[in-house]
Amino acid sequence: MGEEPGGRRRSRRGREGVGQKRVTDYRRLTNPFRPQAVFSDDRIAAIHDTALKVLEELGIKVLLPEARQRFTEAGALVDEDSQMVRIGRDIVGHALKSAPKSIHACAPSPERDLVYEEGALTFMSGAGAPNVSDRVEGRRPASLADFTSIAKISQHFDVMHTMTASVEPQDVANELRHYAMTKVQVETSDKLPFVYARGTPQVTEGFEMLQLAYGLSEETFRAEPHTYTVINTNSPRQLDIPMAQGIIDFAEWGQISIITPFCLAGAMAPITIAGALTLQHAEALAGITLAQIVRAGAPVLYGSFASSVDMKSGAPAFGTPEHFTSALGAGQLARHIGLPWRGGGGTASNAVDAQAANETQMAMWGAILGGCNMLVHAAGWIEGGLAVSLEKMIVDIEVLQMVAELCKPVPGDDDAIGFDAIAEVQPGGHFFSAAHTMSRYRTAFYEPLVADWSNFGNWTAAGSQTSPERATAIWREIVEGFTPPPVAAERQGVLDDYIARHTEAGGAPPVS
Amino acid sequence: MGEEPGGRRRSRRGREGVGQKRVTDYRRLTNPFRPQAVFSDDRIAAIHDTALKVLEELGIKVLLPEARQRFTEAGALVDEDSQMVRIGRDIVGHALKSAPKSIHACAPSPERDLVYEEGALTFMSGAGAPNVSDRVEGRRPASLADFTSIAKISQHFDVMHTMTASVEPQDVANELRHYAMTKVQVETSDKLPFVYARGTPQVTEGFEMLQLAYGLSEETFRAEPHTYTVINTNSPRQLDIPMAQGIIDFAEWGQISIITPFCLAGAMAPITIAGALTLQHAEALAGITLAQIVRAGAPVLYGSFASSVDMKSGAPAFGTPEHFTSALGAGQLARHIGLPWRGGGGTASNAVDAQAANETQMAMWGAILGGCNMLVHAAGWIEGGLAVSLEKMIVDIEVLQMVAELCKPVPGDDDAIGFDAIAEVQPGGHFFSAAHTMSRYRTAFYEPLVADWSNFGNWTAAGSQTSPERATAIWREIVEGFTPPPVAAERQGVLDDYIARHTEAGGAPPVS
Repeated sequence: MGEEPGGRRRSRRGREGVGQKRVTDYRRLTNPFRPQAVFSDDRIAAIHDTALKVLEELGIKVLLPEARQRFTEAGALVDEDSQMVRIGRDIVGHALKSAPKSIHACAPSPERDLVYEEGALTFMSGAGAPNVSDRVEGRRPASLADFTSIAKISQHFDVMHTMTASVEPQDVANELRHYAMTKVQVETSDKLPFVYARGTPQVTEGFEMLQLAYGLSEETFRAEPHTYTVINTNSPRQLDIPMAQGIIDFAEWGQISIITPFCLAGAMAPITIAGALTLQHAEALAGITLAQIVRAGAPVLYGSFASSVDMKSGAPAFGTPEHFTSALGAGQLARHIGLPWRGGGGTASNAVDAQAANETQMAMWGAILGGCNMLVHAAGWIEGGLAVSLEKMIVDIEVLQMVAELCKPVPGDDDAIGFDAIAEVQPGGHFFSAAHTMSRYRTAFYEPLVADWSNFGNWTAAGSQTSPERATAIWREIVEGFTPPPVAAERQGVLDDYIARHTEAGGAPPVS
Repeated sequence: MGEEPGGRRRSRRGREGVGQKRVTDYRRLTNPFRPQAVFSDDRIAAIHDTALKVLEELGIKVLLPEARQRFTEAGALVDEDSQMVRIGRDIVGHALKSAPKSIHACAPSPERDLVYEEGALTFMSGAGAPNVSDRVEGRRPASLADFTSIAKISQHFDVMHTMTASVEPQDVANELRHYAMTKVQVETSDKLPFVYARGTPQVTEGFEMLQLAYGLSEETFRAEPHTYTVINTNSPRQLDIPMAQGIIDFAEWGQISIITPFCLAGAMAPITIAGALTLQHAEALAGITLAQIVRAGAPVLYGSFASSVDMKSGAPAFGTPEHFTSALGAGQLARHIGLPWRGGGGTASNAVDAQAANETQMAMWGAILGGCNMLVHAAGWIEGGLAVSLEKMIVDIEVLQMVAELCKPVPGDDDAIGFDAIAEVQPGGHFFSAAHTMSRYRTAFYEPLVADWSNFGNWTAAGSQTSPERATAIWREIVEGFTPPPVAAERQGVLDDYIARHTEAGGAPPVS
């Protein structure tokens, strides 16, 4: 936790006075917790060394010829028949030297700019789900309207730091979907937008649309990150064509890729945490190296999606002790190589119930205590990623807001200690009307979003609503009453001509 | 987290082989997390000093004449008219020197013995609730049958470390209730029993019953702690008669008291976290000092119940950022005076919903990251302590078991890293049938208690049960199929004569 020297908050007293409304700003968070370790430093070094050995001796299968060519030019040993690429540790070491330790990402509104570096803490909603779920229309394949609703909810809360590909708008054709998803982000939000790495044609058009929308020259766009993507390797040890194209394209354009192996221990990775992290580390290093080969200094995040599966059914599990310790280990490995890193929340629960809340929060604490800088799937994710629940977005955002509150210093000066207030209230009395209380009561405490603290009688009289039921009213009000932020309001329709033209030309199918 | 030197787990390999069932032992936990701070060391010193000043200059109202007499004899300034006791810092300092830093508690079964000291981590169920709630019979005033059910559930799970006064058996008369509660604990459990501090007559009888039940001489019983109680001060700055008697009686008999002020910021304590902790600290020091005056070396825990209230309604709130930072600060204060400490979980939710899970887990993490040694209300507590839910016991115990898993070292030796396993599985393959997996799959992962990781289709086909619904079946099976542990089985009826005799004599009404 951030420590608070005596008296430091005195100057803020005026902002906490009578008549003031509580103002919160969760836009730029610094993780207040000291990172926790699961392995000793020498074992982390051993995992790193073993990962280097994996790349050097076993190699990784790279399906994209251009990527193999890039690796060859950098000195890797490539076997074209097997498509295996063996990468020497000198090449990886060189790449790690050029990968930036701190990444400044330019959002459409400058006050939404983000910095990914050690100590930074950012959150984003569940991503990549084919389905959406809410208590109004039930569970269903996601549509563009659902994607838009989630974008509005993500925009509404400061604690959601970036836009993302929350759900798949399955009512939009594959070759046109990236137009629709980009348009919604541009017209809804002033936060860092997401572009899917589904092959060079879509990525290039995504970059074009963002330049057009925000009036950026190609030079300005390339000079700093204005968008980001997630690269998943096909664990074990395989990098497919669209993902390799994504690494290359994002690196060439100076945009952020988050290299995230998908290492579920016991399934696509060794059953041990140490083994799963070793494979993850090898695959992440391969992707990071490719990005740096393409452009030294390309912004990359170290990604972790290590968890376990149920060894009876093969079902993925999240928020488990294994997921938690994997996150702590991933954080150690990220710090070992000096890169900012992405962790993942989530739950396997099919309902917005106590299991969902408990698993999601366990996963979150693993990531936070592991010092993660970007927490993906932090809100709304259920069913192990097969759906985003609008109600769960709200209940998760409550937790994220409480964590954001923990990022603030807590006043510890003499006035906060309040000897005079303690002296003022006699035994058997109460502090409700003490001067010390009166000057602070409007702003002293976190105000809940969806939590209901009323007693059982009042709660019952009001209809015995559980938190997901209350959450329905909250997200509906946000979605129905949504007003885009100025940056987005000014850009309504700005992409329409571009999209019409490219749609007429047949769009851009995803590469596979 | 506990770090694991390379190779240390090699000797355990045999225990993880094919055909082995996973064996867990959560009986003795060491907190794997480094404690986190909310205030700088100098501000903690300032809070401590201010608390001493509160006791020295303002004093605490002590309603029990005998307690005032004890304080007078120790050199405190006592005003008999106002019942105010002003305690000099030399007296407090002397008491802190004699209070033990490590407390060994003797459970009925030696393998259930506990040690309260820095680094120890123990859990107990929600306590002191007038009501009970479950999905079978609904919410209702608690009965002895409910108290018994909760005792069985607490006994069943290793991760519940002590018995407690979970709910009030309201179907038993006040003057007889302590007989019934002691009998249930003795006949159900081999874990550390609880005795309420409701005045000297009940406490003395409680001690007599435990000696009788376990065949302990008075000398043996007095020599080490065999039971414990919770002492709540009446914040602000008041110690009532039964609580003062409790401190005196437990100290004289060498049994554990947990001195827990009830400092809800903004209500019974200053609205600032620093202020609430200052008042809490002063009151706890007063109680600890009384115990040490009575018997130097008496086992006491530093207790914390600091949270906040809703300043609109006065409703207590738990699992909030304020509750969390209070726990971190309480831990700093406990370490400042070198005593083991008790934190509290809990939620204000009226249902076993996502709010309940989220608040309970937030409160738990505050306590765990604050280094608390006894977490009270860790399972089952809802409605801000007005009810214990049997379903919530199960869903909370799942989280506690996952935390207990985090207390184990994670293998990080070369075999766990598993280069050979990574080499064995080719790109595009999977690890399900790898030798590395086969030798570990039965025991590698935590097995869930109530979590359901099946996919949406299977979950729907099986009836779409949420976690509280599944929890109902789990607690019912535990309660209905309960077999007492040997120590308890041997003691069926052992108290019956004592209880019959004392019941005939009218019992022992609580003191107020």
